[in-house]
This record gives sequence, structure tokens and C-alpha cells, in this order.
Amino acid sequence: MRVLAFIYEGMTLLDMVGPIQAWSFMPGMEVQFVGKKVGPVKTDCGLSIMATHDLSSAWSDPDVLFIGGAGKPTLGMIGDKAVTAFLRDRGSRAKWVTSVCTGSLILGAAGLLEGYRAATYWSAGDHLAQFGATRSDDRVCIDRNRMTGGGITSGIDFGIAVAAHWAGDQTGKLIELMMEYAPQPPFGTGRPELADAGTLALARQLVEAEFSESPKP
Amino acid sequence: MRVLAFIYEGMTLLDMVGPIQAWSFMPGMEVQFVGKKVGPVKTDCGLSIMATHDLSSAWSDPDVLFIGGAGKPTLGMIGDKAVTAFLRDRGSRAKWVTSVCTGSLILGAAGLLEGYRAATYWSAGDHLAQFGATRSDDRVCIDRNRMTGGGITSGIDFGIAVAAHWAGDQTGKLIELMMEYAPQPPFGTGRPELADAGTLALARQLVEAEFSESPKP
Repeated sequence: MRVLAFIYEGMTLLDMVGPIQAWSFMPGMEVQFVGKKVGPVKTDCGLSIMATHDLSSAWSDPDVLFIGGAGKPTLGMIGDKAVTAFLRDRGSRAKWVTSVCTGSLILGAAGLLEGYRAATYWSAGDHLAQFGATRSDDRVCIDRNRMTGGGITSGIDFGIAVAAHWAGDQTGKLIELMMEYAPQPPFGTGRPELADAGTLALARQLVEAEFSESPKP
Repeated sequence: MRVLAFIYEGMTLLDMVGPIQAWSFMPGMEVQFVGKKVGPVKTDCGLSIMATHDLSSAWSDPDVLFIGGAGKPTLGMIGDKAVTAFLRDRGSRAKWVTSVCTGSLILGAAGLLEGYRAATYWSAGDHLAQFGATRSDDRVCIDRNRMTGGGITSGIDFGIAVAAHWAGDQTGKLIELMMEYAPQPPFGTGRPELADAGTLALARQLVEAEFSESPKP
């Protein structure tokens, strides 16, 4: 199974690391980390990660196309014709087209979600319609060969669920134990409908500072 | 708040990315990614991450010392006197000494957990005693200024809980929503006491292949 993971400046690191860590427990998974240029790519956590391939050297026909999300840098990718053309091309041949968080908006801008249901970050669901996609509020949304996860930490649920979809429930159960995924969120505020009004207002301010304009392909 | 995150070849990437992503939502957090050498460090997911500092250029007195875990490479770090001497030195001045997963065994080998309670990966708890530490099976264990998380995904609970400890519950609640941490593990097998016997036997095989010898400082 060859996974083409597209990476870019300012991306939310955990969006990708959740599923990549889950899939690292599956024998035979190979991952290419593909950027616009080969070399270090600075993520939103300050950590730089290495792109080993660029748009011209990446696999032409990966089994899996994956992209994670970001705040403002999502808008940059949506407006980058070289990137959306690349994703459209690889997505047209990939067996599975996948994302976590606002990565689904970038897949949408590449024309890959028309007529599909898709998940995204909790504040970004309304942006899916312009790409012809139907919003899902699930943490994991599988619609035919489109597999999309919700915001940031959803990538862990997504990674495990997708592994089970590919390789069977025993694989999913094993990965969940290997990752010690028996979560205990300290506050129980991880969704807008769960959070108190004050926390939600603070989060909306942060989100709007990042996502002040609508995505424009 | 200056966080010194120690990174090494073969480390479990999510152990570090969980807390680092959580803390990225706190204003004023600075992180140094410190390796034995400056440059790319290959993690267990195949992704290489960049060490920006080495043992001689890292902050002398960080506010926070952090180290994540690994499979076999944990044993390598435990046996590496340059690394344990470095951690002992920085840990002696850090306000907070922290780890996720088997990172606590490396802190232990550096002499930093003597007389403390500490968490670690589900299969590794018995190794804590030789370092004078008392095993905790919690996902987050805070004993005075020692803060340790359980296995891999525990780093998210740990990152949020520690942020709240430092900056108050409102900060923890906000981070939980920003990270959309309302987890739904697909199988509910994320701890030995939750998993069925078949899954646990498979996991023990994988773990024993990595951790066949006892940690020897």
C-alpha cells in the first residue's frame, strides 16, 4: 500500500501524524512525504518535517492520496493551481482519496469531492458545499473511496477506522491497543455542542482570525 | 515558556506531536527540537523531523524538559551516557520534567524519577521500579514537577492537562475544542484490560519483539 502524503508550510502537524502513526503498525505500508519542494517544511507547531519528493517525483499512481488541514495555509493551498492540479491528477488514479480536518476543503478545491459526503474541522463545514460536497459532522466519514476525518485529533479515530476498513477489524483493534487509545479528555469540551459558551466564543475568535476569508479556488 | 524537546532516531512521532500540538495553542510557548546532531532525524513513522539544536547549543535552563518514547530505540537512549548526562543536567534546572510513553524510562535512566510516581506505555510499567519510580497506570501523572503521560495517544490528554496545570482550566478547555478532542475510539480496545484476549496476545508479540531485553542504563 503506497500512501502519498502531501505536506505544506503551516500545516497542522497532528492532522497527518494521527493517521500516519496508526498506519505505521500495518505491515507493507509505504509513505511518500511530498511537498512543493524537497526539503524541510515548517509546520504550525514550529517543527520542520522533510519532504522527500516533489510534485514531479511523487508516485504517479499511489494507492492512497492523503492531505491534512491547517488554518490560513489551507486557503493558500486552495488558491495554488499547481497543488490542486497535482492533487486532482493523483486523486484521479488513487484507490483511496483521503484527508483530515480542513484537508477536505483542499480536496474539494481539487474537484475530488463533488457528489461525496465529507468531514472537516468543526468550524469549516459550511465551506464544503461550494465544492459540491455534503457536510458530515462525523469524526470519520467514508463515502465510497473518499475517506475524510474531522478536526485535528479526529485523525486518530480516522487512521484506525480506515486501517480496519482496509485490513479488517482485527487490525483496527490491534492498532488501538498499540497506540493505547483509551482517551480521557480532561474537560469534555472537544466539540462546539459540548463546550460552554465562554470557551466556544474564545475558540470562534481564534478560528476567525485564521479563516477570515472564504476559501477561493 | 521555553520547551526543550529531545528527539532521536526511531522515536514514536505521536508521543511528541500530541503535546507539542496542544501547547502550540498557548501564547508564548517556544520549543527547541534538540537532537544528538542538528539535522534530520528519522522517526518510527518514516517521517524525518529536523533537530534545530544539539546537546551543546540547546538551552541550558529550559522551563520544560520533554522526551517521548519509542520501541527498541528507547533502550538505545537509556544506554547512551551522553544523552542521559544531558537530560540529567537540563532536568536539574528545568521547572518541569516531562515525558510521554516510554520516555519516562529514559528520564528514569537519567536519574530524574527517583522517588516520583510516573506513567509509561501499558506494557512497560514494570521497568520503572529499577529507576526508583513508582508506576502509575494513569494517562496523565503529575507528581510535584514531574509530569508523565501514558502510551502514545495519552500525549494528547497529557498535553491538555499540563497546559491547564500551567495556565488554568480555561486554557485546557479551549485547547480541547481547538483540537476537536471528542474522541470516539472505533473498537474500545485501547488498554490491556479493555482488549479481547486475541488482540492482547497479538499486541504482546509486537511489543516483545521491540522490548526483548530489559532497559540497562
